[in-house]
Amino acid sequence: MTEPTIKDVAVVGTGVIGRSWIQVFARAGCRTRVYDRDPAQVEKAMAWLEADLEYCRAAGLISADEAARRRSLITVHDDLNLALEGVGYAQESAPEPMEIKRAVYEELDRAADAAVILGSSTSALDMTEIAEGLTRADRCLVAHPVNPPHVIPVVEVLPGKQTDAEVVRRACEFLASVGQTPVLMNFYVPGFLLNRMQAALVREAIHLVESGVADVNAVDAVIRDGLGLRWALMGPFGVANTNADGGVREYFTRYGQAYIELMNDLGPTPRFSPELIERMGQGTDAMLGDVTHADLLRWRDRLVMKICELKKENPPTKNKNS
Amino acid sequence: MTEPTIKDVAVVGTGVIGRSWIQVFARAGCRTRVYDRDPAQVEKAMAWLEADLEYCRAAGLISADEAARRRSLITVHDDLNLALEGVGYAQESAPEPMEIKRAVYEELDRAADAAVILGSSTSALDMTEIAEGLTRADRCLVAHPVNPPHVIPVVEVLPGKQTDAEVVRRACEFLASVGQTPVLMNFYVPGFLLNRMQAALVREAIHLVESGVADVNAVDAVIRDGLGLRWALMGPFGVANTNADGGVREYFTRYGQAYIELMNDLGPTPRFSPELIERMGQGTDAMLGDVTHADLLRWRDRLVMKICELKKENPPTKNKNS
Repeated sequence: MTEPTIKDVAVVGTGVIGRSWIQVFARAGCRTRVYDRDPAQVEKAMAWLEADLEYCRAAGLISADEAARRRSLITVHDDLNLALEGVGYAQESAPEPMEIKRAVYEELDRAADAAVILGSSTSALDMTEIAEGLTRADRCLVAHPVNPPHVIPVVEVLPGKQTDAEVVRRACEFLASVGQTPVLMNFYVPGFLLNRMQAALVREAIHLVESGVADVNAVDAVIRDGLGLRWALMGPFGVANTNADGGVREYFTRYGQAYIELMNDLGPTPRFSPELIERMGQGTDAMLGDVTHADLLRWRDRLVMKICELKKENPPTKNKNS
Repeated sequence: MTEPTIKDVAVVGTGVIGRSWIQVFARAGCRTRVYDRDPAQVEKAMAWLEADLEYCRAAGLISADEAARRRSLITVHDDLNLALEGVGYAQESAPEPMEIKRAVYEELDRAADAAVILGSSTSALDMTEIAEGLTRADRCLVAHPVNPPHVIPVVEVLPGKQTDAEVVRRACEFLASVGQTPVLMNFYVPGFLLNRMQAALVREAIHLVESGVADVNAVDAVIRDGLGLRWALMGPFGVANTNADGGVREYFTRYGQAYIELMNDLGPTPRFSPELIERMGQGTDAMLGDVTHADLLRWRDRLVMKICELKKENPPTKNKNS
């Protein structure tokens, strides 16, 4: 991993997302200052962090020295002003309702030096609205991670109308330097990129189950042992580009009409009735067997990390002989 | 890998899909009889096979002995009757137009013993229609793989109206025994499961690029470094089940309304204009850099195989301590 371009950072809000950000920053070598207005939440987050470091050490994923190094970089502060002292970047992960976010940003804006970049983990809100009326709205932007960010690299970066272009550039540069994959959005749309594409897939998956074409496990298998294997390496455009010798141009020229017909035949938005939800629940119960929810999360995180390592160690390269 | 439940198989049609099926069956230890009405096509397929075995051996993926073992299991026949002699399963991978498929099935039905299961690689056609009027339509079914089947395990299994239930059961059992993941569909829908879900994702991906929210690389990054990492392990239902402590029931009960709003906001079917296709082409060109198409396919296949191994070696298990 490269050196972080910003050495001192703050994590504000320490729920499931915030605590994972602490791992991201400490792993990268940032001095990480932690704050939550609720002391009980911080305690829980630090206990989770300790358990996670211990799990990773026991599983041989990191050394005892590495665990100690990360611990030494993390400090907890019970005063927001102190938490923000000397930092160059603050990652906010407060609850989602707009009123709460706005209140948190007013506080952050007052407490943070003018040069501190304020990134929000919001998965749904528009920074133009959150930061409206702030003295320094130009240093605020959305930096929406996937849960959990210390496992999944993508961060959706979305400036508000007031955000300074240089702040966007520096935030992306910083996020990349701590091992994340910042992805720049040009303007706000509901659900950003990730949740829109997820909703598109979920809608058709539900349609296939609800209409009786296949069961929950069959639909899931098509993704996990089929499409998902390619999507772990390439997005839909990259995949299309590998699906014809002439690349994406040949592929969509040849199959565009077939795609149009298929797209026009896709299922409608489901109503998420209790019956449908229960049917999905029974399907996932059967897939899970006696594996607990906690086991499943550990398994997911461990395997996603291994896939990311695999990709990092094996980038696509030009073969000298081809 | 388990022993194949059917030891003698035929591959009929040796294009890009057919040649990959030869690898699937020979790898599993089946005596694999190969036929194509076009001798030049067989020659090309066997040359590809030889190059692939040699590549895998050189890359340390298989031993020289293993390559020799696979070669020894493959025989080429220039007569369909001979190719089908003594086999229990035949995988047909002829061109897609319905007239061609129907002609091929008439020929197969005459040439194959009544007990031979006839599986079709078709990605779009309904077996009810292909096998209409055949003497033994009851032993015909769709077994649609993902390209390439020796790398991607999923096979969509779709019986026609005439197909015998026992044939379906035995075909699924056999496909699983050679290392594939058979996925059963209850009835025909255009695009089956896989291409419908792919079309759903592609539609929204294109919408995000076409409307200017983000560029091709950004949209692809959200999948390859975000959603795709989870989808390589779990389908949409499995992922939803991990996204809330209370599993899929809590997740969709809590976020159902948000999903409905998002789903109703998704983009329309694109028109695949030459301008749009060129824009996608420029986006994928930029992502690819100087990596050639052939390099990219090799890379994809190697990494997908490694992800499949990783999953096989690390199934989700119940932790004794949890």
